[in-house]
Amino acid sequence: MKWRAYFFGQRIENPVDFEIIKPSQNSVALTYQLAHEPQYSDLMTATSHLTGKRINRFTHIPQNSEDLVKKVKMLRLLGQKTGSCFQRCAGLDALITLSSITYDLDKKYGTKYRANYNRFLEHVQNEDLVCNAAMTDVKGDRSLKPSQQADPDLYLRIVKTNENGIIVRGAKAHQTGALNAHEIVAMPTITMDENERNYAVSFAIPSDSEGLIHFIGRQANDTRKLERGTIDVGNPTYGVSGHEALVVFDDVFVPMDRIFMCGEYELTGTLIERFTSYHRQNYGGCKVGVGDVLIGSASTIAEYNGVERASHIRDKITEMVHLNETMYACGLACSYEGTKLPSGDYIVNPLLANVTKQNVTRFPFEMAKLATDIAGGAVGTLPSEKDLKNPETGKYLEKYLKAKADVKTEDRIRILRLIENMVLGAGMVEALHGAGSPQAQRIMILRQADLEEKKKLSKRLAGVKPTPNPDK
Amino acid sequence: MKWRAYFFGQRIENPVDFEIIKPSQNSVALTYQLAHEPQYSDLMTATSHLTGKRINRFTHIPQNSEDLVKKVKMLRLLGQKTGSCFQRCAGLDALITLSSITYDLDKKYGTKYRANYNRFLEHVQNEDLVCNAAMTDVKGDRSLKPSQQADPDLYLRIVKTNENGIIVRGAKAHQTGALNAHEIVAMPTITMDENERNYAVSFAIPSDSEGLIHFIGRQANDTRKLERGTIDVGNPTYGVSGHEALVVFDDVFVPMDRIFMCGEYELTGTLIERFTSYHRQNYGGCKVGVGDVLIGSASTIAEYNGVERASHIRDKITEMVHLNETMYACGLACSYEGTKLPSGDYIVNPLLANVTKQNVTRFPFEMAKLATDIAGGAVGTLPSEKDLKNPETGKYLEKYLKAKADVKTEDRIRILRLIENMVLGAGMVEALHGAGSPQAQRIMILRQADLEEKKKLSKRLAGVKPTPNPDK
Amino acid sequence: MKWRAYFFGQRIENPVDFEIIKPSQNSVALTYQLAHEPQYSDLMTATSHLTGKRINRFTHIPQNSEDLVKKVKMLRLLGQKTGSCFQRCAGLDALITLSSITYDLDKKYGTKYRANYNRFLEHVQNEDLVCNAAMTDVKGDRSLKPSQQADPDLYLRIVKTNENGIIVRGAKAHQTGALNAHEIVAMPTITMDENERNYAVSFAIPSDSEGLIHFIGRQANDTRKLERGTIDVGNPTYGVSGHEALVVFDDVFVPMDRIFMCGEYELTGTLIERFTSYHRQNYGGCKVGVGDVLIGSASTIAEYNGVERASHIRDKITEMVHLNETMYACGLACSYEGTKLPSGDYIVNPLLANVTKQNVTRFPFEMAKLATDIAGGAVGTLPSEKDLKNPETGKYLEKYLKAKADVKTEDRIRILRLIENMVLGAGMVEALHGAGSPQAQRIMILRQADLEEKKKLSKRLAGVKPTPNPDK
Amino acid sequence: MKWRAYFFGQRIENPVDFEIIKPSQNSVALTYQLAHEPQYSDLMTATSHLTGKRINRFTHIPQNSEDLVKKVKMLRLLGQKTGSCFQRCAGLDALITLSSITYDLDKKYGTKYRANYNRFLEHVQNEDLVCNAAMTDVKGDRSLKPSQQADPDLYLRIVKTNENGIIVRGAKAHQTGALNAHEIVAMPTITMDENERNYAVSFAIPSDSEGLIHFIGRQANDTRKLERGTIDVGNPTYGVSGHEALVVFDDVFVPMDRIFMCGEYELTGTLIERFTSYHRQNYGGCKVGVGDVLIGSASTIAEYNGVERASHIRDKITEMVHLNETMYACGLACSYEGTKLPSGDYIVNPLLANVTKQNVTRFPFEMAKLATDIAGGAVGTLPSEKDLKNPETGKYLEKYLKAKADVKTEDRIRILRLIENMVLGAGMVEALHGAGSPQAQRIMILRQADLEEKKKLSKRLAGVKPTPNPDK
Repeated sequence: MKWRAYFFGQRIENPVDFEIIKPSQNSVALTYQLAHEPQYSDLMTATSHLTGKRINRFTHIPQNSEDLVKKVKMLRLLGQKTGSCFQRCAGLDALITLSSITYDLDKKYGTKYRANYNRFLEHVQNEDLVCNAAMTDVKGDRSLKPSQQADPDLYLRIVKTNENGIIVRGAKAHQTGALNAHEIVAMPTITMDENERNYAVSFAIPSDSEGLIHFIGRQANDTRKLERGTIDVGNPTYGVSGHEALVVFDDVFVPMDRIFMCGEYELTGTLIERFTSYHRQNYGGCKVGVGDVLIGSASTIAEYNGVERASHIRDKITEMVHLNETMYACGLACSYEGTKLPSGDYIVNPLLANVTKQNVTRFPFEMAKLATDIAGGAVGTLPSEKDLKNPETGKYLEKYLKAKADVKTEDRIRILRLIENMVLGAGMVEALHGAGSPQAQRIMILRQADLEEKKKLSKRLAGVKPTPNPDK
Repeated sequence: MKWRAYFFGQRIENPVDFEIIKPSQNSVALTYQLAHEPQYSDLMTATSHLTGKRINRFTHIPQNSEDLVKKVKMLRLLGQKTGSCFQRCAGLDALITLSSITYDLDKKYGTKYRANYNRFLEHVQNEDLVCNAAMTDVKGDRSLKPSQQADPDLYLRIVKTNENGIIVRGAKAHQTGALNAHEIVAMPTITMDENERNYAVSFAIPSDSEGLIHFIGRQANDTRKLERGTIDVGNPTYGVSGHEALVVFDDVFVPMDRIFMCGEYELTGTLIERFTSYHRQNYGGCKVGVGDVLIGSASTIAEYNGVERASHIRDKITEMVHLNETMYACGLACSYEGTKLPSGDYIVNPLLANVTKQNVTRFPFEMAKLATDIAGGAVGTLPSEKDLKNPETGKYLEKYLKAKADVKTEDRIRILRLIENMVLGAGMVEALHGAGSPQAQRIMILRQADLEEKKKLSKRLAGVKPTPNPDK
Repeated sequence: MKWRAYFFGQRIENPVDFEIIKPSQNSVALTYQLAHEPQYSDLMTATSHLTGKRINRFTHIPQNSEDLVKKVKMLRLLGQKTGSCFQRCAGLDALITLSSITYDLDKKYGTKYRANYNRFLEHVQNEDLVCNAAMTDVKGDRSLKPSQQADPDLYLRIVKTNENGIIVRGAKAHQTGALNAHEIVAMPTITMDENERNYAVSFAIPSDSEGLIHFIGRQANDTRKLERGTIDVGNPTYGVSGHEALVVFDDVFVPMDRIFMCGEYELTGTLIERFTSYHRQNYGGCKVGVGDVLIGSASTIAEYNGVERASHIRDKITEMVHLNETMYACGLACSYEGTKLPSGDYIVNPLLANVTKQNVTRFPFEMAKLATDIAGGAVGTLPSEKDLKNPETGKYLEKYLKAKADVKTEDRIRILRLIENMVLGAGMVEALHGAGSPQAQRIMILRQADLEEKKKLSKRLAGVKPTPNPDK
Repeated sequence: MKWRAYFFGQRIENPVDFEIIKPSQNSVALTYQLAHEPQYSDLMTATSHLTGKRINRFTHIPQNSEDLVKKVKMLRLLGQKTGSCFQRCAGLDALITLSSITYDLDKKYGTKYRANYNRFLEHVQNEDLVCNAAMTDVKGDRSLKPSQQADPDLYLRIVKTNENGIIVRGAKAHQTGALNAHEIVAMPTITMDENERNYAVSFAIPSDSEGLIHFIGRQANDTRKLERGTIDVGNPTYGVSGHEALVVFDDVFVPMDRIFMCGEYELTGTLIERFTSYHRQNYGGCKVGVGDVLIGSASTIAEYNGVERASHIRDKITEMVHLNETMYACGLACSYEGTKLPSGDYIVNPLLANVTKQNVTRFPFEMAKLATDIAGGAVGTLPSEKDLKNPETGKYLEKYLKAKADVKTEDRIRILRLIENMVLGAGMVEALHGAGSPQAQRIMILRQADLEEKKKLSKRLAGVKPTPNPDK
């Protein structure tokens, strides 16, 4: 592929050899590898509703509640195996969302988007491709709508149209795993109105398309990956939280047959509600798997330090488990309570999906604090791996960083570094802002709450007579 | 029935006419009434696995996960309809638990308890009886085991045995809805050991059996029910949280064919784990229904006061919805994730069931605080209904307690009284201690957490080599 | 005194003999009694800046920070001694506020209010009178200003003026301890503007003035005081949280020399900021004293139940202490950081005073939950005192409600009832809404935060150059 | 100075030129610089009780409560100016603690430690030296006492004694600002008993003494300081949280006249209680100043993004202010409530000092979450400074990372980097574990709570008669 990608002031010549993103590649690779292991095949694969073939579940459109549940369980499994972000879920959610949206668009407008979509999906399923959901625009002044911005390009938009396709310009931020994706699937990020028809656009293009520029974002301790050790990096195989890119669309051409929405602004709200519901569901899986690793790390360091029987330590680990399982319960519940859309696909319960993510904006922070508490101050003050490996200095560190007599000092340091990686890493920002910031979920929760029905319950019990015109 | 029951220093002559418990009777009655309404029959009824007859779900032993889920949904429905406790769930959980326990006992010991049990269950199902789970002993000094207490009767025990049956003595506390139950189903409340064979006893007897004495407990504002108004009592039809009794077993005879466990202390731990799991599941239903009423009340009073558009009010209501739905998600998840027991019955996921109840020991308090916040200080300072109805004084209250011009003053007062009823009522204590106090769930959560597996995940990611003898 | 007061549909003939308010009278009485005990005289008395006489500190205008600190410490002492509300602090804060406000009014407008005020204050100090701060109007539709209400009387206002005085009409809600006060000191409750000159009024009149009508509000379990026992009432001497009244001003005459503000709406905002600052300070004293009693009760019941060494119990008590002392620290800090006003009086630090009360809208709820947790379910299910005293039934309760062998059953019940009284009582509503609801403090906290100064700190550290026009 | 110090596998040749620690040197330098600015001299300087000279307050022993208060206010000021840790407070607290401890030792044992101490203090004050408190031992297996460890050196101990002095061996962890200190002041870290006389040792030696080895710990994003930019490092002048070292005492000689305790294990508990009280006090100052910077940063980014009027943003900033001021109130209160020790020095209220730090183990985490929430996802995904400065790529970043039209893109990035620096940095670990981990404070809080006194309050109110032997 002929990427144009930058990091740290330089063009990345060959992403495949690039140390900064290698751990994130390992995570993505695991989504392929586990699909071939028999004990995981039920979770990791599914039968395509298009072709009847056995496909990777990361390309599957849920056809029943069980599919939704398995999605959550697959994500927890991968979180446990990587302790990290594996970057295929947002792209999956884009595929899932566009399945029903293109169906609804065609029904409403007589368009042919679903044929485009199905062709694209079959390609993705057959080739087992990784997709990147290009959702979040850079947004400029958040108090202004796209059409009101000083610079109209601050939301992705169509700048030219001809019979072969469209030219788009703009930029999408926070593109998780962008360099590991084969395809970019773009969608609008907010509800558009009639002044923003050119912003109501959705399509898929290869990630190395002409005009696409990837700027890899910095993450906490990113350059530790360049130090070529295996300890200070914390999670040497999988890193911490994928990688994130700012993807600029510098007048990129999209061919006709890769367009899924083009001006039909009235359905942008529905598209966003569906995508965010599917995507918020996930956090009740992946972050729970990562939480399992954090609980395991806290338990291990407690054991290594000799305090695993202390009542306050046990209580803190109990609390971590409780919070982690609460998130999982939410992820499961919104999935089991899924319902069928007109297109035949299944959608999660949107109220419960938003509740899931809202909890994920809270509990991982509490868990991180508890893990840091259990780990002790060393999580923030340990000398470097190089000092440990340097014979002149290593003997002192071996001696003085030893805790329980039968535990190797290096093992203790490894666990502390894994904890550091998780509690002070990009994963925390991602728990908060991934799939939408906390306030985004609150708006959806209130919208879905059906307060009028609850008011009726109360008035009836209190003996308040309904007014003739029953509503407030 | 020939009850021996006391309240407020006097024997209750006829429970049916007794104002203090009438609201709790209305709640129980609704469990019958809704079962006959077609729109609720799917939730409220089920098909008996014993007889194939259509029965009230409050007597049904779950035969699959869907049954477990419907149990939670039925409880939410009733919570919404009553804003209260309807007192049939603990008895149901006793029935459910003893189904598999008598099966396991017979398998292990060659006993015939299951025949006793099945006969009893068929009777309960056919007659649609209300059962009371006699679980919680009075416990005396909590630092001592049953056999170590100064008074051996502080846990229910067998004091005599003959060929016809057994004589039991002791007392069970916090018996919700005792006077509305037809049968009392007794079980041990803690894990017993070999010194406590006489305490390892389970059986069912009619609630008006010779030797049973019911002491109805006081609840906040209980005597408002005797004032014969419909406002100050808050929830005039259903009261607040059932009623609670201390039930003394003053040498009560239990016939042979009503005994379900008699000395087999080794299975007491299993019995308790199952019962508490089933019972903790419920709180993700009933308390959520009650939460719906509280949210509705808070929304209504906000509307009545003219503040329903204020952003901080909307935010508080959003938070209430979020917390309420989190509890519901937990109740659903532990049910959907149910598994089959050797007896063929289904049991909830015990980890998630304990997580459910643990959240119910937290969120209702936060919700009560938010509702009180929204309601304003009037919830604690309103004059009485009698002052409102007294013409000499009522005119002043009508004038000065009026808020929004088009809302009747009395309606506003009614909603405030309903809120008072919920936030300062027995329901709060019940949320905390019902189905076991917070620490009881924490012990179970830690026990079910499988920390060793989580430690392995962490060690693998951190690059810690497994030790030859892999387990700590 | 010739009161017109109502409770429960009837006129109260003689407040002094009225059981409902007697406990609140006992609390007020203690504010006199302790002032005569030498070990408390430093806290309970002060030297009048007007007369140089030794006076009750509940009538003293703070002349330095030490006075502000002693106010907080006096309130903690009384909270410890009564476990309740003693009802003299709002009146004291009205006196304190009007001292500087009348000074400022005279400076600004050349009025003579301060002479009126000083004469009144000297009377109050010499006679050691209890004042009632008539602050909170009933407010009608909260989205409308006083002058916009359908009924203009929903905020207290001047309806007529002549050379002898003014006639006022309206009603003040939540008047703590109204029937125990000698004088009512009225003030506006919100910032008024030029359309609301008639609402910008402050004055003092005797509590039994012609046209004043007191409606005593209901509180949780209020009628237990009429049952003539000493157990179920929880805190037999001092009740729970004073009493609260709705006080109607049915065209009440105020003589000229008792008026402290009359139309000068521009200073209403200042008046309210000062009064609320002084009043919010108090909650870092009184509620901390009440908190001490709750901690003591929780510790006692833990001991009685035999669980005081359990690590989770110790941890919960530690948390209660931590929260309680955090409130105290806030109360102290806002006092020590007091500053001098132009009138010579000292005012608390308003930011920290609002922070104090904001914490009191949170921590007492957490403490109540912890106390209920420690106490166990019995706090919500205990049979009545009459059942305990009835010989026919008492023997069973004596036997089965016994916990630790060397603790009398009745003592255990007494402590449980005290806990019930505190955790489910009017004190909780009062913690939330007393001295202003949570949102009221948040508005003040933000207003006092000086964000612009903090922005400058950040910009300087981040290397952001100040813009030419330096402010935002 | 002839340091032996290592970082990243290499010996640090000249600490003064070492980029990794330069920001921490700038912070220390500010403690000197501000002492010379007239507007800060009241906070930054004091009059020595030994010499009567004007000295830097970072070397002053508090002689009254006002001194304690000014210590807190000085720390807040420096937190505001640096947004970081300035590393002189632990050393100051060591000086303060040893003043009274050497006094008490001499009184009890007739030793001459105080003369040693006074000579040392005068030197420190006259030269305005920076001291490093060598407190926290590396501790090995936390379930074992010092004398039980497999390696006896895991707590600092005397290995040899002669007439000139002692030889000590061991290591102290988490030594904040070690390379910026002139002197190391060592103290025991836990209460020692008679088997640990050799561990009960306190002394002061120059930081470059023979045998001392400093291992500089890694911190989040430490190597960004080596990148030579001014943006990605977040806080280019002052870094984030000083630096931390593991300091090994490889058989270090301490001359007789620098010893302050040598074997008197009975006073180790008192020493630790005093030191931790003084040190926990500080967190109500320094972390509040850092909090001010975080609040300022959150407010600035809200403004830059165009959302500063959004109600949920304002509410979150209000919450940050509230939490920050609560910590400050605690810091002030424990200081104002200071009391005089026999030595004449003043000590903070130990209960309130522990409460202060306990809150600092909580609120900074909540504040960090709120700041991250307000900042948005960009805080975790921004491209590097080098990409911004590279002309080929910078134009894209300038265009697409622009928010509000009149704010420079670079300024926005600078503020986001400052927030990243604070919320994902070493400061978080330090808030949790500095001056003792959360559990350490809880133990002290319970110990100081005087539960017996609180129990008496409750029993009296509940009507429980005191037992003859009144105590439990």
